[in-house]
Amino acid sequence: MSLETFFNPKSVAIIGASHKKGKIGYVVFTNFLSGMFKGKVYPINKNTEPILGCKVYDSILKIPGDVDLAVIVIPTKFVQKILDECVKKGVKSVIIITSGFSEMGKDGKLLEDELKKTIRSTKTRIIGPNCLGVYDSSSQVDTLFLEKKRCGRPKEGNIAFISQSGAVGSTILDWLSEEEIGMSKFISYGNGMDIDESDMIEYLGNDNKTRVITAYIEGIKGSGKKFMEVCKRVSRKKPIVILKAGKTKKGTEAVSSHTGSLAGSGKIYSAAFKQSGVIEAETWQELFDYARAFSSQPTPKGDRIVIVTDGGGFGVLATDESERSRLKLPMPSKRLKQKMSHVMPPYAILHNPIDLTGDTDAERYRVSIEECLKSEEYDGVIAITLFQVPKLEENVVDYLIELKRKYKKPILACAAGGEYSNKLSKKLTKGGIPVYPTPERAVKVMKALVEYGKR
Amino acid sequence: MSLETFFNPKSVAIIGASHKKGKIGYVVFTNFLSGMFKGKVYPINKNTEPILGCKVYDSILKIPGDVDLAVIVIPTKFVQKILDECVKKGVKSVIIITSGFSEMGKDGKLLEDELKKTIRSTKTRIIGPNCLGVYDSSSQVDTLFLEKKRCGRPKEGNIAFISQSGAVGSTILDWLSEEEIGMSKFISYGNGMDIDESDMIEYLGNDNKTRVITAYIEGIKGSGKKFMEVCKRVSRKKPIVILKAGKTKKGTEAVSSHTGSLAGSGKIYSAAFKQSGVIEAETWQELFDYARAFSSQPTPKGDRIVIVTDGGGFGVLATDESERSRLKLPMPSKRLKQKMSHVMPPYAILHNPIDLTGDTDAERYRVSIEECLKSEEYDGVIAITLFQVPKLEENVVDYLIELKRKYKKPILACAAGGEYSNKLSKKLTKGGIPVYPTPERAVKVMKALVEYGKR
Repeated sequence: MSLETFFNPKSVAIIGASHKKGKIGYVVFTNFLSGMFKGKVYPINKNTEPILGCKVYDSILKIPGDVDLAVIVIPTKFVQKILDECVKKGVKSVIIITSGFSEMGKDGKLLEDELKKTIRSTKTRIIGPNCLGVYDSSSQVDTLFLEKKRCGRPKEGNIAFISQSGAVGSTILDWLSEEEIGMSKFISYGNGMDIDESDMIEYLGNDNKTRVITAYIEGIKGSGKKFMEVCKRVSRKKPIVILKAGKTKKGTEAVSSHTGSLAGSGKIYSAAFKQSGVIEAETWQELFDYARAFSSQPTPKGDRIVIVTDGGGFGVLATDESERSRLKLPMPSKRLKQKMSHVMPPYAILHNPIDLTGDTDAERYRVSIEECLKSEEYDGVIAITLFQVPKLEENVVDYLIELKRKYKKPILACAAGGEYSNKLSKKLTKGGIPVYPTPERAVKVMKALVEYGKR
Repeated sequence: MSLETFFNPKSVAIIGASHKKGKIGYVVFTNFLSGMFKGKVYPINKNTEPILGCKVYDSILKIPGDVDLAVIVIPTKFVQKILDECVKKGVKSVIIITSGFSEMGKDGKLLEDELKKTIRSTKTRIIGPNCLGVYDSSSQVDTLFLEKKRCGRPKEGNIAFISQSGAVGSTILDWLSEEEIGMSKFISYGNGMDIDESDMIEYLGNDNKTRVITAYIEGIKGSGKKFMEVCKRVSRKKPIVILKAGKTKKGTEAVSSHTGSLAGSGKIYSAAFKQSGVIEAETWQELFDYARAFSSQPTPKGDRIVIVTDGGGFGVLATDESERSRLKLPMPSKRLKQKMSHVMPPYAILHNPIDLTGDTDAERYRVSIEECLKSEEYDGVIAITLFQVPKLEENVVDYLIELKRKYKKPILACAAGGEYSNKLSKKLTKGGIPVYPTPERAVKVMKALVEYGKR
């Protein structure tokens, strides 16, 4: 089974495309008109007056030629009939955005069961209902009914994101776009009546535009066994990072009123994730802290990490977190210390963290990090670069980027501050080194890289 | 003992004021020349050529009239002699920025001990050595040797910040300035040879420009007993939030090489903080998450919190964190539900969290939050406002600000995203409602407010 036509359809029908600016059916239709989407787009509406000059059909059955993807944005009561027509037309992929199904209780569940029956033994597959659908940064399939001025779309990148919740999904999409973090594919699957987490993870596992798979879930929609099997297989190829909501007793109750999922016990989920090679995130911030590193860093070959800092205090905080996270910080050997010492003042502290102290220049960073990477004593570096110190030249950024390319070992950075610091952080990020604002976050991310490397 | 002349001196001598742009002694001197500082400023240097047109003295003893504050930025070996002169001149406050004392081991310790002897039984008090000194947003005393283009200075506000580490201090100062979070006073005290944490907390406790006291410490410099006594007393008047670094075994070792402090066991510190009413933060992000709330919110009168959300998923994550943090989320009474129900669609979920769902408008927020605040069933509100949803009008922000003013109960918000979302979040913040990017952070902050209220 392939989900290809959801992401790369040659032709799309927007069923419920609207004439009225601001309406959901208008936003979804116009998303496809920016000129970036290369396929054919057919608006469908009972009112066949043209929309923005495009010919409108009153039924999908009237469309000449094939339709790969149908997007349904019409009131609940009409969905069944329209789906019948989609099946009749031989549409492979259907996204039902409309809500009012199993998330609404018993009656809605019955309606959804009917939809299920309709596609049984057909080639039609469904994402939704009660969802935002799909955003593909490359093909520019974009079924999100949120105007771009309210909700930005991320640029092309290699992070895929699956979200059970539409609001969580759109918030994060908007945030990723602001942070200039690239994304390959986004899928909001709502009630997940047909295509479930396992199907998507399987597909993304084979998607060469995706390097990391991230997901927000409240409860597995499909079979738990299948989910674990798929994750086991896919996580050998690429990292899967999941944020599971509803892990506490009260949280589980909240899930049941939100998406009607069986949230299950947080512990059971955590155990299942662990068994199937899934990396678990505790918050959405952590989810994308991890994703940014996996999307840009090579997998470390061991667990020996060195921290290099110009701020002793941040070094201490990083050390505290390393101990809590059980990340190993072995001391540099005498030989290695000697190799760094020629650029160091007597008060620099060549332990781990290596404290270059607040009067450091870029050269101390370059030499210490290069010697560490070259020495075979370390498998990765956390560079705490507080750019406020007075003598640190801007080219420290170029040094770091060069070293990362040269030695193919992970380098994460930690920096925070204002305009000047943000400018240099952005440069680091562009050069393939993600920057975290607190030492604790950088350490946790390195731990996740190391754990993934161990598998 | 008053520290008043450190923050509001009528006259300042910069000993080591430099003629060379970029030099530390140049930066410190020119900080006082912006026209914002109202007192007299005297540059002192052996070379008495004018600096930027200002008359230069070759000794503090030659200055006509009193000197309230002397800032020392000269090489280590000259500090003793200069301090002798300061004492002779009757200078009340001295900031020694110069490093090379007890932080360097035995020999440095001896030098520092000599300095101590020099001020014994005099009226001269010292901040430092090995520090950045003081930044006062109101008087514009600014002894930081970091150029403003590298390290911004926060605007006026009511958060005071004490930092043992200069680099941590400057990084946070820069970040606060970027985030437009106001600050009353900043003190980097380095080795703390004379004025210690207790002195500063005592002083800030009586400072009417300071509403919250925050601190980064690695180990108490003064007496532990005095520290606890002062904190107990001051924390009754205003919240004290402290980030203690060096809480693990490895972290403690790192502290000892960084500032030579006895970090002690993290558990002992945590117990001492608890006993003396200090709120402990785990990361610097948490430190200022808490500080922003304490600086703007009334103290809650009880522990009954309601969460209102337009994103079910964020509601679930907030619920999970509430259970972990033991924050109470009681259900609304039947009567209260009825009072909200007239603006709610049938699928809105009137539990706690109250899920207004993704098609909410501003009115649902206004009515639900106002009824909750009015009802006497709740002592505070967490408003999750995901601004990406299509129908939510911008005036939801004005409603929230109005409700906070009217009911004098704490309201925290949670939102994240891109330009549009950030614009509205800034408006909320300006209106006195701090906004946190994750539900977990908002919940933890509310818990801290509730705990402080209980005392």
